[in-house]
Amino acid sequence: MDNIIFEKKLNQYIDYINNRLSEILSIEYPPKIYEAMRYSVFAGGKRLRPILAIMSCEMLGGNKEEIIDFACALEMIHTYSLIHDDLPAMDNDDFRRGAPTCHKKFDEATAILAGDALLNKAYEVMIDNVILKKEEKFQKAMKYISDAAGVKGMIGGQVIDVISEGKKIDSDTLLYIHKNKTAALITAPLKAGGIIGGMSDDEIKLMEKAGENIGIAFQIKDDILDVTSTTEVLGKPVFSDEKNDKITYVTMFGIEKAEKDLKILMDDALGIIDGFGEKSKFLYEYIKKLVSRIK
Amino acid sequence: MDNIIFEKKLNQYIDYINNRLSEILSIEYPPKIYEAMRYSVFAGGKRLRPILAIMSCEMLGGNKEEIIDFACALEMIHTYSLIHDDLPAMDNDDFRRGAPTCHKKFDEATAILAGDALLNKAYEVMIDNVILKKEEKFQKAMKYISDAAGVKGMIGGQVIDVISEGKKIDSDTLLYIHKNKTAALITAPLKAGGIIGGMSDDEIKLMEKAGENIGIAFQIKDDILDVTSTTEVLGKPVFSDEKNDKITYVTMFGIEKAEKDLKILMDDALGIIDGFGEKSKFLYEYIKKLVSRIK
Repeated sequence: MDNIIFEKKLNQYIDYINNRLSEILSIEYPPKIYEAMRYSVFAGGKRLRPILAIMSCEMLGGNKEEIIDFACALEMIHTYSLIHDDLPAMDNDDFRRGAPTCHKKFDEATAILAGDALLNKAYEVMIDNVILKKEEKFQKAMKYISDAAGVKGMIGGQVIDVISEGKKIDSDTLLYIHKNKTAALITAPLKAGGIIGGMSDDEIKLMEKAGENIGIAFQIKDDILDVTSTTEVLGKPVFSDEKNDKITYVTMFGIEKAEKDLKILMDDALGIIDGFGEKSKFLYEYIKKLVSRIK
Repeated sequence: MDNIIFEKKLNQYIDYINNRLSEILSIEYPPKIYEAMRYSVFAGGKRLRPILAIMSCEMLGGNKEEIIDFACALEMIHTYSLIHDDLPAMDNDDFRRGAPTCHKKFDEATAILAGDALLNKAYEVMIDNVILKKEEKFQKAMKYISDAAGVKGMIGGQVIDVISEGKKIDSDTLLYIHKNKTAALITAPLKAGGIIGGMSDDEIKLMEKAGENIGIAFQIKDDILDVTSTTEVLGKPVFSDEKNDKITYVTMFGIEKAEKDLKILMDDALGIIDGFGEKSKFLYEYIKKLVSRIK
């Protein structure tokens, strides 16, 4: 796919997502909480999860208007998890993407509540869709997202990540964290988009496999960049994992195996997506580019 | 209604709710987060919201099996809000009902995540019901609960409560806090139970009015007890509102008007419930007893 066409189309998706997010989060009373929610949602995220949802929906000819609110729900869930992760009691991060984190810009109480509000709002939006649109596929999309966000998904991964801090962990635990903390919310948009776009159960299962691979691959890529990039390129401190005594895919298996496994996971995932034919080209390119990024 | 029969029936409801909550929160991996969730859910709550949901459902002949999971979802949402409210950045409470709060028993990170997990679990359970049971009334019940839990309900009330701390507030603001922080999650079970039990839109509106009155009345009652009870009877410090410079219904309007308004609100609510006839007797008694309590 021509790079200019790709970029143009990608930006159209991002605009479409941002416009809807802005509508959903239009400021009402009490304004302070909406401002905090908007601050974090519009803090420069690349909209990975909503884009995956829309692309997956379109792969079998689905319409992006059908999936957009679920796509936004995914972004709100992702954002709430970042806000809570950044809190002093968790990762205690003052900055994210170069800007103050929610609890630094506002205060801790506001950040806790803004996170809660974003999670709840994600459900409010999905429930409105479910009621309005009747078809069971929307209920199932909501279930995929809800399961991925919960203890058997993202929160479970986060819990083990927090517990493991500063401890020696084995490879099963590391994989559990990557699968749940990161991959669950990559898999969910692919499945939710897929079912709304008309995929069969077997096709959904394929997307689940692809999503898991992609999620783990992204995490390995992050771990690799932390030791191979520079602070200038990455926009955040490198060797941070080493400094924090954090066990990563690279510290556990070495850079060579990390790069090899990254390739295997990505080839497998891209193979699945390629199998969907002509309409999958954009998703294929998008994922490929994300993993070949240098920051 | 005979007092012994009432108490027996009430305890049967509570057992029924607790059994289902225990099933929903059965310990899986990672155990620590389930333990924290269970710790707070089973910390001695009186199950007000689930009981209201079941009673409202049964008022028009609905079956408690239909509403039980929504009733448990309400309790999980209520519990998550308490866990987050108690955090150091919010109310900074070390004890609740005489036992250490979640972040004191475990740690802050676990408490934040346990709250998040309970909110998400509430939706997981409701979504499973919606998919399994097909009928639209379950979707609507979920919407009532979701709206009440969000920024236009409980979270909104909490935000204004936090912002107002130590400030002079007017009566509109005080009423907004009571309506949203407290009454929204009293109204939601009455409406959710009502719709699942077969109420018409007009009847749901009546329950909404009753719920709002009851919620505000409960809050006024709390404010009154804080100045008329003793620490021994109440099981928590009295005059705490005064000590914390907290503006309450009593400090704003005086004890006489507070008691008068409490009676007006309750008479109005009980009148609505009485209008539903024979089957509403238990709910009627339950609410009456709650407001005439001395602690």
